[in-house]
Formats: sequence, C-alpha cells, structure tokens
Amino acid sequence: MAEDKTKTTVPVKAGDIRPFGAIPVPRVTPELLSMVRTGAVYSLEQIVEPGIPFWDGHPPLVIAPYVRHGDMPELAPASVGNEITTLPMHGCTHIDALSHIGKWVGGEIELHGGVKVKEVMSRAGYSALGAENFPPIILRGILLDVAASHGVEVLPDSYGITGADLKRCEESQGVTVRESSAVLIRTGFSKYWRTDNARFSNKGAGINIDGARYLAERKIAMVGTDTEAVEQWPFDPEGPPLPVHTYMLVDNGITHVESLYLDRLAAARAYEFLFIALPLRIRGATGSQIHPIAIA
Amino acid sequence: MAEDKTKTTVPVKAGDIRPFGAIPVPRVTPELLSMVRTGAVYSLEQIVEPGIPFWDGHPPLVIAPYVRHGDMPELAPASVGNEITTLPMHGCTHIDALSHIGKWVGGEIELHGGVKVKEVMSRAGYSALGAENFPPIILRGILLDVAASHGVEVLPDSYGITGADLKRCEESQGVTVRESSAVLIRTGFSKYWRTDNARFSNKGAGINIDGARYLAERKIAMVGTDTEAVEQWPFDPEGPPLPVHTYMLVDNGITHVESLYLDRLAAARAYEFLFIALPLRIRGATGSQIHPIAIA
Amino acid sequence: MAEDKTKTTVPVKAGDIRPFGAIPVPRVTPELLSMVRTGAVYSLEQIVEPGIPFWDGHPPLVIAPYVRHGDMPELAPASVGNEITTLPMHGCTHIDALSHIGKWVGGEIELHGGVKVKEVMSRAGYSALGAENFPPIILRGILLDVAASHGVEVLPDSYGITGADLKRCEESQGVTVRESSAVLIRTGFSKYWRTDNARFSNKGAGINIDGARYLAERKIAMVGTDTEAVEQWPFDPEGPPLPVHTYMLVDNGITHVESLYLDRLAAARAYEFLFIALPLRIRGATGSQIHPIAIA
Amino acid sequence: MAEDKTKTTVPVKAGDIRPFGAIPVPRVTPELLSMVRTGAVYSLEQIVEPGIPFWDGHPPLVIAPYVRHGDMPELAPASVGNEITTLPMHGCTHIDALSHIGKWVGGEIELHGGVKVKEVMSRAGYSALGAENFPPIILRGILLDVAASHGVEVLPDSYGITGADLKRCEESQGVTVRESSAVLIRTGFSKYWRTDNARFSNKGAGINIDGARYLAERKIAMVGTDTEAVEQWPFDPEGPPLPVHTYMLVDNGITHVESLYLDRLAAARAYEFLFIALPLRIRGATGSQIHPIAIA
Repeated sequence: MAEDKTKTTVPVKAGDIRPFGAIPVPRVTPELLSMVRTGAVYSLEQIVEPGIPFWDGHPPLVIAPYVRHGDMPELAPASVGNEITTLPMHGCTHIDALSHIGKWVGGEIELHGGVKVKEVMSRAGYSALGAENFPPIILRGILLDVAASHGVEVLPDSYGITGADLKRCEESQGVTVRESSAVLIRTGFSKYWRTDNARFSNKGAGINIDGARYLAERKIAMVGTDTEAVEQWPFDPEGPPLPVHTYMLVDNGITHVESLYLDRLAAARAYEFLFIALPLRIRGATGSQIHPIAIA
Repeated sequence: MAEDKTKTTVPVKAGDIRPFGAIPVPRVTPELLSMVRTGAVYSLEQIVEPGIPFWDGHPPLVIAPYVRHGDMPELAPASVGNEITTLPMHGCTHIDALSHIGKWVGGEIELHGGVKVKEVMSRAGYSALGAENFPPIILRGILLDVAASHGVEVLPDSYGITGADLKRCEESQGVTVRESSAVLIRTGFSKYWRTDNARFSNKGAGINIDGARYLAERKIAMVGTDTEAVEQWPFDPEGPPLPVHTYMLVDNGITHVESLYLDRLAAARAYEFLFIALPLRIRGATGSQIHPIAIA
Repeated sequence: MAEDKTKTTVPVKAGDIRPFGAIPVPRVTPELLSMVRTGAVYSLEQIVEPGIPFWDGHPPLVIAPYVRHGDMPELAPASVGNEITTLPMHGCTHIDALSHIGKWVGGEIELHGGVKVKEVMSRAGYSALGAENFPPIILRGILLDVAASHGVEVLPDSYGITGADLKRCEESQGVTVRESSAVLIRTGFSKYWRTDNARFSNKGAGINIDGARYLAERKIAMVGTDTEAVEQWPFDPEGPPLPVHTYMLVDNGITHVESLYLDRLAAARAYEFLFIALPLRIRGATGSQIHPIAIA
Repeated sequence: MAEDKTKTTVPVKAGDIRPFGAIPVPRVTPELLSMVRTGAVYSLEQIVEPGIPFWDGHPPLVIAPYVRHGDMPELAPASVGNEITTLPMHGCTHIDALSHIGKWVGGEIELHGGVKVKEVMSRAGYSALGAENFPPIILRGILLDVAASHGVEVLPDSYGITGADLKRCEESQGVTVRESSAVLIRTGFSKYWRTDNARFSNKGAGINIDGARYLAERKIAMVGTDTEAVEQWPFDPEGPPLPVHTYMLVDNGITHVESLYLDRLAAARAYEFLFIALPLRIRGATGSQIHPIAIA
C-alpha cells in the first residue's frame, strides 16, 4: 500500500482539495444526498467556554476581549469588538490531523505513511500531514449508540468497546458500517462534560484495539465519539500506550473526531445521515476545531 | 420589527439551533438540494499561515508546537504533538458575529436588535449575539463575479460596488439575488493575499452603502467577499465610518464573511450552488473562523 | 496636596527617573548605604513555575519552548532556544503599578491623583500611572515578622493585622517604621505556596484598614507581604471591598509588593536592610514582576 | 575545568543564591560599595512597548488589558485592572540564561558545562541552566563607550569590535576591564531603537571573536551592549554562525545583556559604577527581562 509522497510534500494551496489519509475527496453524488430524508439538521459541537474538560498538556483556554466596543472613538458612530483567544483545540470538538500521532520505528518517530517527524516538524509546525490538508468532509455518517444498545444512559467508566459491541449495535439499530463512512459512536459521556471533568477526561469509555480493528477492516473514513479520546481511557496497562490512536491514525490513516455532542441525534434515533465537517486549514497544525453536523 | 429578546438572552446550549440575525435555521429542502448539480465541491477558505494580511488591531498570529513528538517518552512507542495558537480570527476566512459591530445611540453603544453593549460585554466576552449563536449555515449561495462583469482581473483599489454594479452582474451571469441567499462577491483582491498585504488590507474594493442597501432590500441571509472588509475601504471620508458594517450588521442583522477564496469558483463559472459554513460555537466571541464550501 | 499632572501625562522615556506615587527617586546616600552591615544578600522572589497560586481573573501561566535547540540547523554548530510565556504577573512576586487599583467617584473611576480611568485606559493599556513610570527602588527596608512577634509559625487564616500589631512587632524587633521605608511584613503564609494554594489565595492574613493607616501615617514608600493580597483576605464583609488596596494605592499612592519570599530574611533576623527592586518598564501595564532583594 | 554538576542538577528553591556560569554569588563588600561616588542612579532599560525591534523568531509582543477597571461591579467602590502579555523577552532589555545557547558536539547539542540538551530540554523548559538559577547580580560595572573612543555618534553598521578597540577605549577612559566585572559596551545603536528597527536588528555593531576573547581572558562576569546581539551582526560569513555567543555562553559561561540603554550613562561619563540587575527566576526559561541600573 504505497503512500503517494507527492500528496504530502507538495504544499496545499487555497482551493486545493485532496484526500487526507482515509478521508476522501468529497463527491456529492445522488446516493450521498439520499442520506437526507427529513432534512433535519443536528449540531454536533460542544460549545467552547471556560470550564470545558481537557488534558493539561494542551494550552489553556483564554477567550478575552481585546478591542472592546468603545475603544476606538475615531470610528464613532460605529464601534467594533474582537478578542484574543488561546484554545485547547484538542479539548474542543475537533478532528485530529495525521500529524497529531506518531510511533517510534527504530530510533525515529514516524507519522502516517512513513513520514519521519524529524523531516517535517519544525518551529513552524508540520510540513506534512498538517491540518491544511483536510478536504471538506462530506460523507455518509452513521451513529452507533452503544450506550443505548447496552441499555444504559452512559457506558461504565473506562469501558472498552469491542468489535462485537459495535456489531451488536449495528444489528439492533439496523445500520451497517460501510467503506468510507463517518462512524460516530455514542457512549453517553457527554453527561460528564463540565459536570464531572475528571471523569470525562480520565475515565472515558471508548473503543479498544478490537473495536478499532473492526472499524478499520471495514475501511471507514473516520471515527468520532462523545469522549475525549475515542479510545478506551486509560488504555490497557498491559499493552502499549495509545494503541487505538496509533493503529488508527498512524497505521491506517483513519482520523478521530473527539468530544462530539451526540445526544439529540441519538434521541431522534437518527442512525444514518449526511455527515459534514469543514476543518479549518491551519498550516502545520495537528488538528482543527470543527462544528460537525448531521443532516438526517 | 421587534426583536425577540429571548433569542439573545437565553444562553444557547449544545445542540440548540436558532436563527442568528438574518441567518435562518437550516432546512435542507429538496429545493435547496436542487442547487447541487454536478456535485463538485469548492473550498472557499484561505489557508491560515504566517504572512497573511490583517489589521493590527487584531491579535497577532502565533502557531507554534507546544507538545512535540518525542516530548513524552512515557507514551512510547506512541507519540503525540499539539500546538499553541493565537490567531487573528478576523484576518482569516471568517464570519462576523453580530457582537462584532455596534453603533452609538445616545450615549450608549447598541448592537443588533437594540442590545446594549454595557449590558452584555464583560471580560468573559458577550453574553448576547456571540459566536455560540451561529446555526449551521446551509443556504442557496450565489457568486457575483463583479470583477469579471467589469472585464477586469481585479477591481480598482478602493472601488465602491453599487447596487447597479450588482444588478449588472446578476444580469450578465443570469443569476438573481433572492431572499435568504448567501451572496458571495468577487473583486479579485485574492490576488494581493500575501503578495501585497498593504493593498489587500487598506485598498480593498467592496460594496458601498448603495450596494449594501441593494442587498438588504432583497433580504439576503449574509454577504461575503474575497476582501478583508466586505465594504469599500477606506469608506467615503465624507460620511460616517464603517457605513456598510453598521447598516448590515447592526441595522439589518446581515453578517459578513471576509477573506474568502473565490477564484476557482469563478473560473468554473459556478454562479449558483449550495453554500455551507459551519461556524465554531465559541461562547461570547465576535466571530468564527470558517472553512466555507460551495457545492455546485 | 495637588498632584502635579505633568508627572503623569508626559510619557516616560528610557533613562527618565521620576517618583511614582510614594516611591521616591532613588538617592544612594551614605546613610542609605549604612543599611549594609554584613553585605549578605537575600533573594525575596518566589520562583515562577507551574502550580503557583493566583486568582483566576489573571491570565493563565504558560511557559513553553518556542524555538528549541536544534530547530535552526542553519545556525550549526551553534543552536538557540527561547520560549513563549503568558504569565499571571499579579500572581508572581510583583509590584502593583498605580494603574492597578481605582475607585468609583461619582459615576467615574479614578486612579491615584484623581486620574480618570476613562481618560487613560485604552486597548494599549494605561497612558498614565503604568509600570513604565517605576523608578529603580532603592530604599531603607525593614522586615516586620508579625508571625514571630505573635509566637506562631504562620498567622491564622484571614488574620487582620492592626496598627497595634505592627507597633508591637517594631518594639519586639527594635526597628521603627519611618518615612520612605519599604516595609515588608511576614505572615508565614509562604508555607502554603504551592502546598495549599486555595488557602494561600483565599485565606491570607494581611493588614486591615487600621494597619494600613498606621503605615500611611508614617509616610512609608511601599509595603510588601508574603501573601497574595497584602490586605486581610477576605476583607471585612461589613465594609467596602478592597479597603486597603483603595486606601493605599488610590488615596495615598503607596503601592504593594505581593507574594514575597521572606523566610530566610526572617530566619536571619535581618530586620533592617537596603531594599532594592527594579520593576520592568512595560508601558501601560498595571504592575511588574520583580526579583526584590535585601542587603543586610 | 570540571563543572560541578550539582550546581545544575539540584533545582533551585526560593531564596537559594548560587553562582550561574561566570556570575558570582553577590558579596556586597566595602570595595564594591566604593564604586558608589555621587550616588547617582542610571536606568539602563529600554521601555517595553509596541514597535520595539526584535527577531521574528521570538514570540510577538502583546500587551492588552484583560480585566479592565469597571469589569467587576461587585468590587465597587473599588475597581481593578490587569493585562495579558506575551513578550519577546529576548527583544527587550534582558539577560540570556545559559540555556539560551548551545553547540553541536558530535551528534548532540551541549550547553555550558557539557550539559546535554536532550537530557534537560522538555516541554516544561530547561531543567538545567534556566533563568531560575540567576543570583541577584551586584558587580563592579564599567562602561566602554567605544563609539565615543572612535569619535562617532554611532559605530558603523555591522562594525566588529576587537580586543584592540576595547583596550584603546579603556585607555582613553581611564578604566580597566577586571575579573568579575560587568562590562557594558556602547555602540550608539540605541539611536535606531524604534526609529530604524531593521538596522538595529540586522546591522548591529558588536564584539567579534577577538573582542570576546579579550574579555573572556580577563575573566569578566558578564557583558552587555546597547544592541540586539552583543556580537557583530551579521557575524563573519566565512566563519561559523554565532561565534561570540557560542564562545561566551557555552565555552565560558559568560552571559549577555542585550538592548541596554546606555546614552545617559555615557553622557555623564560614568565609566565605573555599581551595576545591579535582578533577573526574574522563571523556571526553565532561557533568559530574563531586566531593568538594570548603574549607581555611580
């Protein structure tokens, strides 16, 4: 499965649309549009505000007025306001770029496709596999409400979702994981968003390596959850760290969407839909904050 | 035209979808989907990177690795990277929230709908009309390539686009500005993006108050341009400052999308399309960076 | 006591040395040098690092490598490193500028000397009474170890230090508060620095309004403590908020040094010394992080 | 010349005073105090404000109100203000920590004393040779006004100051470089501070390797200039990059103070004085902004 290196080494320009790992160039076919049945739109983003949970290895959250209305009397009778922000992007509803996760191979760290970190990482960010490479994401999406298929409001702390769990959920809902789908998995952990941040961040249910293999074998385009890590947290201490991240992003180019808000989609039993996410193209970044939607 | 204050005073929660000024709650009707003809997708975002043009009243652009791959040997064989960013959001491809522009009325500053700045502005941002109020934006979009209809590659510096200019462009292209449309206006100024930033920022062609009235009378949902200000820059020194911003955002609740990349859309003569933008829901912010698309 | 407005309205240039409130222009007289007896030097700064206590109204603490050694191979065989920092200056060992505290007079906020906030505050900071006005501070310093004079390791939580407490301490130590002295008051609260931040920040012993009057009447130049607020925290809920800050900074131009490290000075019973602090001259800022010293 | 590794590996605590490279633990002896003749104090710091010159590899300068007076009505009649700052510390008047400069030895980068970067650099900064190690700096200082001894207002662009230049200057002024002195060298380049930033940053006069050797052989404690780099800029393209930085900081532990304001000191012909600088103790940082003074 030779990676075409030109994909990663010719810098993207405005307007360019390329595949990025398993995320294909969007083609809005009649088949894809047939996902739209009622036309109802669901917003899947958690609101970004002080008090959201995130790992303290991410930068802190600052949202502060910078120019305030009234600051520039020379513009009267008009006035303007803006703000300065520093955000823990990976703590907001976001999508990981393939530059986010690597693995040690020999004495070096490699990203997806064998890209060597030492050749692409600099103080300017990542010259390959950065967020600027995201195409618009327009896919068949499915929701697997694993919490519901387990008959619980929220999965147990640190529950590891297996392939069998996913399969059972598909069957109970009557939907199927298919190639190039965006698979959204609901654990119910949104319940702890801003109400029990330690639990949200440190005890998340999520897919384990078995669940990850189940999805990768079906050649999905991306996977998202209503948790901070997509993968079971903490991961199995007997095995290597971050097994799902490594397997999905590095080995398979399948990226993660984290901290989704899925409760209304689940309440509506909207299990198949048109999924749209439009990642920001910030050159060299390791991901992008997004406001994904489902149109059912 | 009484503004329903409840719209602005009950804080939005995750999943809530409400109108925001002239932007309606999305309804993905068959009529709207009929805008999709070939299924071709256009990315309308300028890439965010060092060297982009923006007003120095916005915060500076910082994109710097924070955790770098290799920093956390305890995760081996996995590795992770992230970054710290401070971005001049209003200098990236973005959409203005209605909290961005106000006007002095008596001795006070009011935002759209008569919301008084002093009642909603705090060090936490804006408790009304902030970016968290954006619904997903899914609209009929049209491109008015005013540069092309003038037979030029780029409009002259500081050119003021009038209603007559817009009408002539509609006629030459065979499209019509209609209620609830997203109107994208091309001036050609993307040519100066990162190649002549002073010109891009200080000499932008744009609609003047006559052009703005033309659009507002047709009850459009939003207007965007490939310039920094949407409005003619500098504005007419004989009149009040920021006349278009004030008229559109404050008086009419019609927001602006700025620094769009429209060249490929124009080259394809894709004049009518499904327009989608998914603004980030950052509580209290004055706008949102976006990656808008057109599906033609 | 008319304030000379020229002092505050002609911007300071590099090299200018002026008084700032009660802090005089330094004159290094033989009398002042006579404070130096053994020549021993004490460092009175708490080290700035993650985990220090501070009020969450201050910006968060970020200290992160920006350029790292190895990032610029073009400089080999040399290499350089730097960092990006955002610091909660008022949570570090620091000195308040007179722009830091104001009080409402009529419908307006005034700073020291009747300077109206609305005339000097802008998005660029404060055009009067900002940190750039600090002269080098070289004064007779005294330590009042109130904890020791009370026979305790640490004063009780929220203890309000009175004038009588200060007087008793002077007598027990054999030192006297005099005009133009830098008065450093030890409560013992450094014990809680990074070990019990909630207590350090929310329960600090400190001078009450009686103690403040005692010091102001003696025309001191500045006062510092080993606590976050100098004043008793929380202040008396029966009275107005921040009575000591208001009385000292606004009414008397006597500024505060906070979060000092005084334990070794106290252990050495060094009660009189040459005090030196060299505030950074950041134009428009509300204070300056400092590394003050005592030479005994 | 065995480096005592305990110096660098036992973390400094508040109050600890240790030597740092060539900077000794301060001892305020009568001999040192004899430098004080008239008692006149000179401020040697450039004011920090928008528009100062610095290399764009440093973080940008942000000084913006964060809490503004009036933001917290619950504190009335008191009010408070603070700010958020991100500063290009190495572009302000500052002192380099020994963690700032390294050199490649074999395939590794070493700092002063053979400290290996890979063992001490992390996302938390530098666990050895960081700014927290600075003692208070109290030294005999001398000014070498090389511009004056050359009979010019400002040295020529990129002029390389040699040992012979320094010797001639000492003789003309009647002062001598001695062991443990703080040597301040005036080029006149302050003239370009904020008036011709490109020249200040890119064409600085400074010592060349010959001048550096002259100083190091005399075992000075530190060297400072009124330029951005201390060393001739650009350095000799025939030789290795940053020869003076590498020789002084890495090989000799002699640190640099940059962007000093020396004009008034020079105008007063104050060539020998008590030099005091009190670097902030920010754990892991590569230097510290300072407000140095001379007492003559």
